[in-house]
Amino acid sequence: MPLRSLTYYAENNGVRIIDQTRLPGELRIIELRTLDDFCRAISDMQVRGAPLIGITAAYGLALELERNPGLDNLAHASARLAASRPTAINLAWALRRLERVVDSLNEAERFVAALGEAHAIAEEDVVNCRAIGDHGLQMLRSMSEAAGGLAINILTHCNAGWLATLEWGTALAPIYRAHEEGIPLHVWVSETRPRNQGAKLTAWELAQAGIAHTVVADGAAGYLMQTGKVDCCLVGSDRTVANGDVCNKVGTYPKALAAKANGVPFYVALPLSTFDWSCASGADIPIEERDAEEVLACVGSDPGGEPVRVLVANADSPGFNPAFDITPASLITGLITECGIVAAEPAALSALREKIQAS
Amino acid sequence: MPLRSLTYYAENNGVRIIDQTRLPGELRIIELRTLDDFCRAISDMQVRGAPLIGITAAYGLALELERNPGLDNLAHASARLAASRPTAINLAWALRRLERVVDSLNEAERFVAALGEAHAIAEEDVVNCRAIGDHGLQMLRSMSEAAGGLAINILTHCNAGWLATLEWGTALAPIYRAHEEGIPLHVWVSETRPRNQGAKLTAWELAQAGIAHTVVADGAAGYLMQTGKVDCCLVGSDRTVANGDVCNKVGTYPKALAAKANGVPFYVALPLSTFDWSCASGADIPIEERDAEEVLACVGSDPGGEPVRVLVANADSPGFNPAFDITPASLITGLITECGIVAAEPAALSALREKIQAS
Repeated sequence: MPLRSLTYYAENNGVRIIDQTRLPGELRIIELRTLDDFCRAISDMQVRGAPLIGITAAYGLALELERNPGLDNLAHASARLAASRPTAINLAWALRRLERVVDSLNEAERFVAALGEAHAIAEEDVVNCRAIGDHGLQMLRSMSEAAGGLAINILTHCNAGWLATLEWGTALAPIYRAHEEGIPLHVWVSETRPRNQGAKLTAWELAQAGIAHTVVADGAAGYLMQTGKVDCCLVGSDRTVANGDVCNKVGTYPKALAAKANGVPFYVALPLSTFDWSCASGADIPIEERDAEEVLACVGSDPGGEPVRVLVANADSPGFNPAFDITPASLITGLITECGIVAAEPAALSALREKIQAS
Repeated sequence: MPLRSLTYYAENNGVRIIDQTRLPGELRIIELRTLDDFCRAISDMQVRGAPLIGITAAYGLALELERNPGLDNLAHASARLAASRPTAINLAWALRRLERVVDSLNEAERFVAALGEAHAIAEEDVVNCRAIGDHGLQMLRSMSEAAGGLAINILTHCNAGWLATLEWGTALAPIYRAHEEGIPLHVWVSETRPRNQGAKLTAWELAQAGIAHTVVADGAAGYLMQTGKVDCCLVGSDRTVANGDVCNKVGTYPKALAAKANGVPFYVALPLSTFDWSCASGADIPIEERDAEEVLACVGSDPGGEPVRVLVANADSPGFNPAFDITPASLITGLITECGIVAAEPAALSALREKIQAS
């Protein structure tokens, strides 16, 4: 992991991010300073992944308070950032944390306090992802021992690596930790149409780390599982709710169904910041519908590495582009959190919630 | 349906096909004459769809017998055509029909007899697809009546339209017939990576016919079903086996799982020529693995309509590209054949087989 996906630069009072829409062809670093910069970076998916957009929004709000620390402006900026993407709960969660911190302060104190809270959110994310990696590592180690040391095959979808967080990632954290520990593994990377975050970002991350992996079409995951080529599935979460349902990148749910049908364990790795206790079930989660253009076209790179958009559908046909789906708790083997692996069921989650609130 | 997907031209002693790799950007007609032409057209998917590759192979073998009607050449040509794609059974089935016809004839009679058999296979396909359309129409009509005349939403995958047969198609035949009858419907078209036959071919066919449709990413089918947006699924088959398992384009199986989980009827439309009674279950079917390049790249068209290939995965990452998967009989509501709708279960299929053999 050569760098963080986002870094605060005090001298410019801005943050630098990797423009993820340019990967894997180009590692372009861009700077965000204005509220517009931050909102656009999130909605255009220059930054993506629930934890990372939470962190990005926190910095966006903090920096906006330097310009204008008024409570009206706070409310306005927070609402704009919250609306930049609707499904991942980390956005709202991070903004609420900053609002609570600055609420009782006078104007002169707000920026510094908000920036401190943004830093805290960022540093907690690193610690939490590392802890998710350690808990997941134990699961992968047992699996490896049961496989007699043969490489274990892990299927993932979309990108829940360090690009989706600050470091380590969520679903990829156990994989990075296992690779560090010398556990042999191979990752099936589901390409994740329409934006190909699997083929572009996850494959790039794994290649950088020297981890064996293979890209497959989204539709191929069922075939892989029915032919015994997958030992476990490991994905991230954009929002996790009270009954254990998980909302993640569209295409996750069919993989969970195939895993269940073929006796393949299906784990979801997530920081507790993805929990939305106010949603009783996944049906309550608003699902982002993105521009149909993303489905009708495909953005790749030409032989020179330059991004090119090609039309892949019949020219006048309309498209529909829901960005997430719901994986019901009944299909989930376990939730790998920074507090350990928890069953995706209401009782276990209530207990977890009480433990968090008590601490 | 302005034309057939394949036409025999006596004056040139060749067949003309639509080069389906150029659709939807260009309706290019090409002529096949030599055995090489036919093998390449099938393996490169200029023609595709189980019924159409059976018909194409039949003409390829017949025309080769004009050049050299020797039995050694017959065996050689048949083996080459059979190997051009491994999964769809129609290829082997059509070749066997020609072999049986010419077997007892002397050399001078073989070409004409084989050509006659190829014509017969072609004409039977049209009649059978029309019959599939009529049987499926009854099912769609009942569904429409139950929906109080509201448009019914049908999800399909890949292309099982007239481009995959000669006319009508298999899965699309009931849809064309229902549209003719004024039954309101809307088709969800799953794009079908890696070659996008849904987005390119099915969307083109439906647009030509003026049938309402919307293209979605393959991974979105689960979301559509879990949110009640699909009334039934309707797909084709490349090989159907004794226990009712169906082998179809990769990505079909996850859709069948999502249909079962959400109480959505899942129908497979197929001519009896896709049956392989020698396979006890889907596990016995050889699954074609195509070039990984198809997954790592995407072929679309530039703003001028010219085909362009773009890399959509990380440059040095490997890919894996199984072309089909198996949908177990337990997930299938019914098989729509030219003999009516049959349950996907051994007893019903044995009875069907006896009926066919007796006729």
